Amino acid sequence: MRRSIATVCVSGTLDDKLTAAAAAGFDGIELFENDLVVSPWSPAGIRRRCADLGLTIDLYQPFRDFEAVPDELLKANLSRAERKFEVMAELGTDTVLVCSSVSPAAVDDDDLATAHLSLLADRAAAHGMRIAYEALAWGRHVSTWDHSWRIVQQADHPALGLCLDSFHVLSREIPPDGIAGITPGKIFFLQLADAPHLRMDVLQWSRHHRLFPGQGAFDLPRFLGLVLSAGYSGPLSLEVFNDVFRQSDPARTAVDAMRSLTLLEDRLATLPAAPRTSPTPASTAPHASTAAPHASATPPHASATAAAPHASASATAPHASTAAPHASATAPHASASAPHAAPAVQLADRPGVRRLPPAPRLTGHAFTEFAVDGHSGPELRSALRGLGFAHTGQHRTKPVELWEQGACRIVLNSAVTHPGPAAISAFAVTSENPPLSLARAEALSAPAHLNVREPGEAELAAITAPDGTSVLVTHPGDNWRSDFLPTGTPAGPGAGLLTVDHLGLTQPFDHFDEAGLFYHSVLGLEHLPTEEYAAPYGLMRSRAVSDPQRTVRVALTVALLRRGEWAPAVSDPQHVAFATADLIATARALSLPPLPVPANYYADLAARFGLTDDFVATLREHGILFDRDPSGGELLHLYTPVFGGRVFFEITERRAGYDRFGEPNAPVRMAAQRHRRLTTTP
Amino acid sequence: MRRSIATVCVSGTLDDKLTAAAAAGFDGIELFENDLVVSPWSPAGIRRRCADLGLTIDLYQPFRDFEAVPDELLKANLSRAERKFEVMAELGTDTVLVCSSVSPAAVDDDDLATAHLSLLADRAAAHGMRIAYEALAWGRHVSTWDHSWRIVQQADHPALGLCLDSFHVLSREIPPDGIAGITPGKIFFLQLADAPHLRMDVLQWSRHHRLFPGQGAFDLPRFLGLVLSAGYSGPLSLEVFNDVFRQSDPARTAVDAMRSLTLLEDRLATLPAAPRTSPTPASTAPHASTAAPHASATPPHASATAAAPHASASATAPHASTAAPHASATAPHASASAPHAAPAVQLADRPGVRRLPPAPRLTGHAFTEFAVDGHSGPELRSALRGLGFAHTGQHRTKPVELWEQGACRIVLNSAVTHPGPAAISAFAVTSENPPLSLARAEALSAPAHLNVREPGEAELAAITAPDGTSVLVTHPGDNWRSDFLPTGTPAGPGAGLLTVDHLGLTQPFDHFDEAGLFYHSVLGLEHLPTEEYAAPYGLMRSRAVSDPQRTVRVALTVALLRRGEWAPAVSDPQHVAFATADLIATARALSLPPLPVPANYYADLAARFGLTDDFVATLREHGILFDRDPSGGELLHLYTPVFGGRVFFEITERRAGYDRFGEPNAPVRMAAQRHRRLTTTP
Repeated sequence: MRRSIATVCVSGTLDDKLTAAAAAGFDGIELFENDLVVSPWSPAGIRRRCADLGLTIDLYQPFRDFEAVPDELLKANLSRAERKFEVMAELGTDTVLVCSSVSPAAVDDDDLATAHLSLLADRAAAHGMRIAYEALAWGRHVSTWDHSWRIVQQADHPALGLCLDSFHVLSREIPPDGIAGITPGKIFFLQLADAPHLRMDVLQWSRHHRLFPGQGAFDLPRFLGLVLSAGYSGPLSLEVFNDVFRQSDPARTAVDAMRSLTLLEDRLATLPAAPRTSPTPASTAPHASTAAPHASATPPHASATAAAPHASASATAPHASTAAPHASATAPHASASAPHAAPAVQLADRPGVRRLPPAPRLTGHAFTEFAVDGHSGPELRSALRGLGFAHTGQHRTKPVELWEQGACRIVLNSAVTHPGPAAISAFAVTSENPPLSLARAEALSAPAHLNVREPGEAELAAITAPDGTSVLVTHPGDNWRSDFLPTGTPAGPGAGLLTVDHLGLTQPFDHFDEAGLFYHSVLGLEHLPTEEYAAPYGLMRSRAVSDPQRTVRVALTVALLRRGEWAPAVSDPQHVAFATADLIATARALSLPPLPVPANYYADLAARFGLTDDFVATLREHGILFDRDPSGGELLHLYTPVFGGRVFFEITERRAGYDRFGEPNAPVRMAAQRHRRLTTTP
Repeated sequence: MRRSIATVCVSGTLDDKLTAAAAAGFDGIELFENDLVVSPWSPAGIRRRCADLGLTIDLYQPFRDFEAVPDELLKANLSRAERKFEVMAELGTDTVLVCSSVSPAAVDDDDLATAHLSLLADRAAAHGMRIAYEALAWGRHVSTWDHSWRIVQQADHPALGLCLDSFHVLSREIPPDGIAGITPGKIFFLQLADAPHLRMDVLQWSRHHRLFPGQGAFDLPRFLGLVLSAGYSGPLSLEVFNDVFRQSDPARTAVDAMRSLTLLEDRLATLPAAPRTSPTPASTAPHASTAAPHASATPPHASATAAAPHASASATAPHASTAAPHASATAPHASASAPHAAPAVQLADRPGVRRLPPAPRLTGHAFTEFAVDGHSGPELRSALRGLGFAHTGQHRTKPVELWEQGACRIVLNSAVTHPGPAAISAFAVTSENPPLSLARAEALSAPAHLNVREPGEAELAAITAPDGTSVLVTHPGDNWRSDFLPTGTPAGPGAGLLTVDHLGLTQPFDHFDEAGLFYHSVLGLEHLPTEEYAAPYGLMRSRAVSDPQRTVRVALTVALLRRGEWAPAVSDPQHVAFATADLIATARALSLPPLPVPANYYADLAARFGLTDDFVATLREHGILFDRDPSGGELLHLYTPVFGGRVFFEITERRAGYDRFGEPNAPVRMAAQRHRRLTTTP
């Protein structure tokens, strides 16, 4: 399957966009008209540049407000189209996207729309071109895929087919199931976009909040399965309008985009087997009539198509015959539908569907490494000691220390070249099959690189996460610990910290959704629900990723708007949360004073949760925060102040299956950390 | 009228917020519970701090999900309320905002809601406190002001009244007119917020996109007039949830907020006189029954209230009698309603309504000053020469030059202390009454300061705009030109530039809405419609302000999201657009080559507008861009490249009343300026 990306997905001028698409490995592009209009290159020059980069121009888009208009306007629109066909010829592209009209001049008349689109298809065919008609979700009269399909069926013109855009289809209530029943060869183009569920005007939702597949809430694997079941064999093309992607580094965005398509293609294999419907009724009743040229499709007919649930690939076999009448037509693409005449196959076995190496099961955190310098190193050492950690090992060749407590392992790396705030420079997770994990990462455009190392030291391959953190994948039996000489101090029970509960990593503004998809696809972690909350310096969004067993959790946070001049002193804080079985006992055992929590918080806590005075007094005594989820799970947790200018620690006790991260308490923590900084800084 | 601001309006910790509110001149605050919860100060400490700053705590908010719940939950909610009353007592505040429940546990039963709220009011009264009940626009069962008013009427409890929030009222379809008929004394609190018209989920709209009065689309003067007609005499309090204000400098936001209230209060005087309805029916039919304690208000009764259009202040007089039964009640605020028993007055004459000095008519641009240094100065001089300007004057004492053409005057000021890109450091407009303009600015928290000057030089008082630009207001007869010694070169017709068409000023991200309100309120300019467009580096928003005669226009632009690392080389570009009567003739007369426009643009232009080939060829020859508005007005305009690292010029010819700014062409200009920069930079 070929992969394509609309130029509108990424930022910059056309040259920036083409370079980024090619570098990320795309085969083709959709050329968005505005990118052409503002380009100093001629269409022929753009064609050459694309060819040099190994890119085809798969679609020219969009052509707006064409059909079902008064004669005078139709004439002007046809003349406008002729100009575009000339440009397309120079570009060397043969398919143009025509979106359903939003013009007040358009009338609600399917016969007229059909007649006009047929006329346009005649003109296109004369140029060896074709029209891909798309129902915009906010089209004036045509706003659903099944309506656009009725019109295309009615026109029955070899140079007129559908463009299906997952956003326009899945943002509406009309079920997509019937797509599998579309006549093979009549889906001319497929555009893929994901989106979060938002309750807002669909046009605004579409223009600002689309995401790459796997970043939002739409079921794109199933949607793609339906489209492929209808015999579609054109490119998988991304068309994502997103305010952030429009203004961030196009090279990064294109890689993110490619990763999303790789994952989506792999997901096809995990689709539940489609129920095989009997071919008999399908080959007789609804679609047989579509072979008759310009047969008028009535709405009840179309509804029957749309109502067929989970139509499988095999159910499309009977339609192969409908492609036949056009095989000898003048449209250049009629032959493209020929392969679909072959009997349908299971999607996963479909030739050309690429599979990813599966994501091996993760079993936990091996270690977390902090980069420290002469200022932050002593602060972190003192904090670790206060938390009950022991300095158990010293690296054989580098200024790197290993600190341990229970199964919690912290590495302090002083071999930093640029002094600055402390940072989580790397974290290592254990995998049942690290080589397979790395192979999967490589297939997802996240190749591993070997850390600089000395002879005899453990090989640790690192993948770079979108925020620059190195992610290492190790086997529980790996010998990385042999790089450290024992100091003789044993790792004791300390204060009762058992394991890493989660890492908290503030993400760079431009790369939040990229980071979510990175961990989701590369490590196979699942997205937990997004949370938003008001912090003292603005709104925050948090979205964690985790394995199903909750052995590896990473909470990703970002400011809802990029921070400006008025901003907290600590930028992009990071933290490690450790799990304990009894936080009150742990708190008693700490020699580090926890972050002071305001008395007002406890007064409110008592009122909110109806806790006993004794319990609240105990929480207050130890600076412990509290949260409860709707199913009764409870979180007790405490924080430390910020160390080394950027990092802090948390200790959590999860009760009764609490599965969140205490987000309502994050603003309390932020205000308290700021207060402490202001009151302790000389 | 006292002015108050909710702490949630501004960014930072509670101390930041209180300091900002006091500095901007507010009399009081609404304390948002979360700001208290995260504060290290005790409630008594907050009370002291507010007193020190001269602020009262006018409202504690919010108390959620109280009413119409099962008995068990009611008991818990009352206990929760008791805790809050204790906190309020320490804070020294006596009114709490209770918003209509959104809890799934709440039932749709007005009698139950009434009974529960009465119970809560009893408890409040025992503490000397009162309950302001507010219908959230997304309340589960109570979501409109008239519904909340029915419940408050039915309860008829002296310690239970309404909180009216302009957002919750004006975001719904229920007309606000009936508010004027609310029993005097029963509106306990008034919250003011503006908002743009957005088609989205009302909760998200409310939580993210509110604005200060005058920045959005709501008719707040009329709303406030209705509330005052009902005898409300509490504070005018702002409650604005806005993503940008939440993360920008609170001192700036508070001044912006105060300016919005000052303008709003002044606008009361411009309200059309309310039709005086006959007092007879009002005093007999609908409201007479409300004097009976706990009379049950039926929906038809309430609708009758809501349906009374434009009820005037005088129409509330008959209700004075309904306040009487409670005058001797235990509620501490019952006496507060006593003044409203006095006959209603016209709003504008109402004691305490402050008026602004009126905004004098503006008559044009006097001059535009650029700050230049040794690098940018020569570039700008050369550009001005190329545009047909003559260097006509030299400042008597400073390195400042005057350049002229027609009525266009540019001042180049080389007396800059910090070298950097060229910038529009000041612009001067002519006013029919400059002292009055300055008095108005002062009253709107934008005091003028005198420029540093030598003896004998013209006094030019400057107001600082939110982006730091100095705005000078002069009289057409002012002698500022006498500060310049004539060079002997006369200002000729040059290339035919006549006047300044508009200034284009990119605004700092945090201060876009502040800038709109600044020009709107201080100079009395009106907002033109907001436009959004996709530029090569991200989405842009543009909103111009202008006087009615279009003699002074300023186009304010901002990136929809704050720019990040991947951004254009020119940050915050600025420009001056000059008007000509014949752009083609002007283009022929220029000795400066205009910004080259791509051939693709003209191919598209011909297709879009059906222009003749000859006309398009002429436009293309001179690098002229074209736009047409829906009413047939046309714009011809051309741009120059960027000079001095940041500024450029535009020349416009407006035909047939074109009233926009050629926004669709802005991305073409941006891409062309970037292309030129890349191809001409060594």
